Amino acid sequence: MKGLWLENNQLQLRTDIPHPEPTLGEALVRVLRAGICNTDLELKRGYYPYTGILGHEFVGVVEQGPEHLLNQRVVGEINVACGYCRFCRSGQPTHCENRTVLGIVNHHGAFADYLCLPVTNLHPVPDNVPTEVATFTEPLAAALEIQQQVALGANDQVLVVGDGKLGQLVAQTIALTGCKLLVVGRHQDKLANLAARGIKTGLAKDVTDKAFDISVECTGNPEGFAIARRALRPRGTLVLKSTYAGNLSLDASSLVVDEITLIGSRCGPFEKALELLATQKVDVKPLIHACYPLTDGIAAFDLAQRRGVLKVLLEMS
Amino acid sequence: MKGLWLENNQLQLRTDIPHPEPTLGEALVRVLRAGICNTDLELKRGYYPYTGILGHEFVGVVEQGPEHLLNQRVVGEINVACGYCRFCRSGQPTHCENRTVLGIVNHHGAFADYLCLPVTNLHPVPDNVPTEVATFTEPLAAALEIQQQVALGANDQVLVVGDGKLGQLVAQTIALTGCKLLVVGRHQDKLANLAARGIKTGLAKDVTDKAFDISVECTGNPEGFAIARRALRPRGTLVLKSTYAGNLSLDASSLVVDEITLIGSRCGPFEKALELLATQKVDVKPLIHACYPLTDGIAAFDLAQRRGVLKVLLEMS
Repeated sequence: MKGLWLENNQLQLRTDIPHPEPTLGEALVRVLRAGICNTDLELKRGYYPYTGILGHEFVGVVEQGPEHLLNQRVVGEINVACGYCRFCRSGQPTHCENRTVLGIVNHHGAFADYLCLPVTNLHPVPDNVPTEVATFTEPLAAALEIQQQVALGANDQVLVVGDGKLGQLVAQTIALTGCKLLVVGRHQDKLANLAARGIKTGLAKDVTDKAFDISVECTGNPEGFAIARRALRPRGTLVLKSTYAGNLSLDASSLVVDEITLIGSRCGPFEKALELLATQKVDVKPLIHACYPLTDGIAAFDLAQRRGVLKVLLEMS
Repeated sequence: MKGLWLENNQLQLRTDIPHPEPTLGEALVRVLRAGICNTDLELKRGYYPYTGILGHEFVGVVEQGPEHLLNQRVVGEINVACGYCRFCRSGQPTHCENRTVLGIVNHHGAFADYLCLPVTNLHPVPDNVPTEVATFTEPLAAALEIQQQVALGANDQVLVVGDGKLGQLVAQTIALTGCKLLVVGRHQDKLANLAARGIKTGLAKDVTDKAFDISVECTGNPEGFAIARRALRPRGTLVLKSTYAGNLSLDASSLVVDEITLIGSRCGPFEKALELLATQKVDVKPLIHACYPLTDGIAAFDLAQRRGVLKVLLEMS
């Protein structure tokens, strides 16, 4: 089958990849559409070692699996858990000690004609959710993880730093809580997406120091972290939603003096994400920059890593 | 009056300091005993700019003030709050935006014959608590702040990193929760203090990676932070109890992947600290390394900054 294969930081379109065989408990999924995420770009840049098919945001159709899913469109949770470690047993499979991760850690990903995932990872896509929209389920779930970790109330002043793919989803989900939200970024067109939904937007210079209860860092760069940090009142909470290349240098003493909480945030609830897409409470269509056939996957990656470009999708055929 | 005066990183014993005059709402306190804290050593090293009398851990006798406190032994909370800012109004005076801090920020400290503090900052010392013991109220309250921020249950595996003055108090207070506690440090004699109280102790090499729910960093150095970090399971909490000289460099991506919470912790509840001292649930006497007269304050500082030395007290006369 065809797939985008990463090896030694080189991405190539291969047509000779063996057709995958589902193991016990797995389904075989024919991929329809998949999204390129910053993590894919980082993997390509070599920030983490990975060899194999990339891709973890997808919609597909079950071709082999249990009857209730056969021929259904599905999305899939990316962490493949062992089921028996202390984290699995305590209901935290996304932190399974033995996990593989679709297209990220020891598990071939979604930028291919087919993938295999455990049936328990799959969620049917509601009929009224278009395929291209459902490819956002995984990053939207990640955005919703914030609300699993931090209570956001109507009186909370919340800052989202970053207007990129993740910042857009984070901002839209946080806006639904009814809190007092400001989103800052560098791109007028991306901020306009949010402003059109009634979300208050601005530039870094519009952020008042020590004015926010909660800030969410969605840029993955130290400048973004600095904005999120200075925005916080004492005893405020900074959510780290992006991964960083290399180490981050921070003033730990000021965290102590101001009793700041810093919290890392990763994968989130798929059911809730699908519900928001089905009820159209979140609009991901303005985030789609382009859709390329899988065979033009290399060009799609080149586009996706250009500054200012939002989501690039791949379409399998 | 006499006092230890810091100016341009030079500490000197002055005998010509004007006698302080309490302002409205303040009491005049004759200092009996005071403790040298790492913050004092850091101020002397110039990590924060400060000019004036150092010292913030003290016991004194009220010489001018309201009748119910006159001639009473007292300890005092160190943050002098404005009473009207948003933090004061929300019951967080330790984060007052306009605060001065005894012996640290714009408020003459306790290494002198007299000090002034607002009456509302003062707490009478129970009769059965010796003066030298009560000098530990402030750092003990700071240790107890952890429990105001993080719930510690009987099933929680908790690691305290650091066997110094702060680590000792943190360890003793955490042990009272009944959680599963390990304290690691570098000094056999200091660890023996804790082991004598039935607390499990060890060296850094005894810390199993990803085995702890909560870790508390009490060393203020990057090596201590690294131990506290690697000890944590995914979704664990790292409490930063010490201030750091300079910036701390950390792997922010691993905080995201493991969804770690990092929380800074500063001043805590005096009432609870005094209660623990009065009921002898915490034993601070083994932490007293020496007691010097104020007139030998410079020598006391020299001793206090020597590696391995615990608390050095100053006695006023």
